[in-house]
Amino acid sequence: MYAEVIVEVLNYVGIVAFAVSGALKAGEKNMDLLGFITLGFSTALAGGIIRDVLLGRVPPVNIVYLPYPATAILASVATFLLYPHVRRHKDVVLYPDALGLGAFAAIGADVTASYCSHHGAASCWLLVVMLSSITAAGGGVVRDILAGEIPLILRREVYASAAAAGGVIYLATLPLGREAAMLITISAVTAIRIAALWKGWELPKVVSQPGAH
Amino acid sequence: MYAEVIVEVLNYVGIVAFAVSGALKAGEKNMDLLGFITLGFSTALAGGIIRDVLLGRVPPVNIVYLPYPATAILASVATFLLYPHVRRHKDVVLYPDALGLGAFAAIGADVTASYCSHHGAASCWLLVVMLSSITAAGGGVVRDILAGEIPLILRREVYASAAAAGGVIYLATLPLGREAAMLITISAVTAIRIAALWKGWELPKVVSQPGAH
Amino acid sequence: MYAEVIVEVLNYVGIVAFAVSGALKAGEKNMDLLGFITLGFSTALAGGIIRDVLLGRVPPVNIVYLPYPATAILASVATFLLYPHVRRHKDVVLYPDALGLGAFAAIGADVTASYCSHHGAASCWLLVVMLSSITAAGGGVVRDILAGEIPLILRREVYASAAAAGGVIYLATLPLGREAAMLITISAVTAIRIAALWKGWELPKVVSQPGAH
Repeated sequence: MYAEVIVEVLNYVGIVAFAVSGALKAGEKNMDLLGFITLGFSTALAGGIIRDVLLGRVPPVNIVYLPYPATAILASVATFLLYPHVRRHKDVVLYPDALGLGAFAAIGADVTASYCSHHGAASCWLLVVMLSSITAAGGGVVRDILAGEIPLILRREVYASAAAAGGVIYLATLPLGREAAMLITISAVTAIRIAALWKGWELPKVVSQPGAH
Repeated sequence: MYAEVIVEVLNYVGIVAFAVSGALKAGEKNMDLLGFITLGFSTALAGGIIRDVLLGRVPPVNIVYLPYPATAILASVATFLLYPHVRRHKDVVLYPDALGLGAFAAIGADVTASYCSHHGAASCWLLVVMLSSITAAGGGVVRDILAGEIPLILRREVYASAAAAGGVIYLATLPLGREAAMLITISAVTAIRIAALWKGWELPKVVSQPGAH
Repeated sequence: MYAEVIVEVLNYVGIVAFAVSGALKAGEKNMDLLGFITLGFSTALAGGIIRDVLLGRVPPVNIVYLPYPATAILASVATFLLYPHVRRHKDVVLYPDALGLGAFAAIGADVTASYCSHHGAASCWLLVVMLSSITAAGGGVVRDILAGEIPLILRREVYASAAAAGGVIYLATLPLGREAAMLITISAVTAIRIAALWKGWELPKVVSQPGAH
């Protein structure tokens, strides 16, 4: 109960932080108000929508539970109205964004694992890992595609991989109970993400061969 | 009954106009015949497909009711065959396109509101607004992504927002009956769109700050 | 039974070849390990995922039947580890890729036709053709969009159209039995694709008008 409240609060933190990140991208691309709303909405909610569509949970909770889309839209409109200010302090958003990443990954893992146990799916650890990652990072991919860019997370960040690690952590700690597993997952993913920001961690790339390109 | 025929006729007008717009984009990008068909098909039908997937109405009517995909494909092939002529007169398509926008928005609103009342969803006005807009404008977004462009509607047109307004208008006039609500929605969205074309209306953008970029 | 084994073996051939093609694109775009996995996974499995979502077969087999995603991910990681070597011999992949195209088209046709006969859909030949094509070529479209490129198949290759032809061939040979139809479809699609590679076949384009652009 207590844990549920924490997760839900962090879920809203994530929706707001992700929507702001999407709206800032819309500003960068000189979009209009609708562009701000569409990119803010997509960044915050598209990952969970894709997860729900893949699991057959339709209509997705992110479009039918009014407070979620309303929060994303309001955060996008606020970013539009206060654009120069938000833009100037955009690095501040990285911390709530890291919390949101953790919350989204934990919720994605929890939803998928519950689905698996209700449907008697035996070995769905890979599904949990994939859908944690998609829930948390799918919105950013949609944002970048709508902005005409190659998705950032495919190139140089510990972001979706932190969320995927969250799926593993959730499953490893699930014997402690769902609520404990979610709180541990959120803490771990957020910590990995913030450490990656501080230390400039990146995933490995192929060794570039001189003259090979 | 009479209203139903009007809506269905305008639905076909929209499918043809949207398919032509997609096929013209394929020509602009120097695509082959398959590119014309794919972009024409997607522009005309992807919005309704996304709506149906989100509502769990699968397979989507736009792929199983043969006349819809057949119309979109034929219009795309015709645009391919008559490309220089269609290209020269492409501004003519803006008017049937506006009618199609109205018809698609009204159909999207009607399908979503029916879904809500059958499933006892209480407050789904936001869902109606979002899915009207996605039904009418989602195809254009898919077209632009397939063409490697930032979706036009996110940048500088009263287009998806006219369709979203259609969702509100449909709900506001629903007490007059479904058929009346649809006809009023179509008229209003088409009028808004044509007025926007004539007057050069655009949605607001953030005030650009000199030196802020 | 015997035919089933052949189809399944060729399905794995296709998953590996498609994943390698996606991972090579990730390397071309200087992506990190996650980019290799995401593009490899998407190229191999996104077509079938889209087909299953459109038919309401969720969760899609490509994410819940562990060997499929595991094969795609392993092939992507192997491409990452052996990148310079795989890159140098990438033309070799075109032949297993052609076999995979045939297998995916045949599986897409078979799944869709089975769906139709179970649901009493009368005239779903166009659905079979579309979903054969999407199963086989949809992954490549997703790969190119994630890589920030206009999908190659829309511009200059006999690829998705070979898969679409496979849908027609499957339906035409279905009276011989499902297994025969699948084997004939695989052979025909693979032959068309390899012939197109050898002969440089392309789909028609509009006659470019001097000065028309």
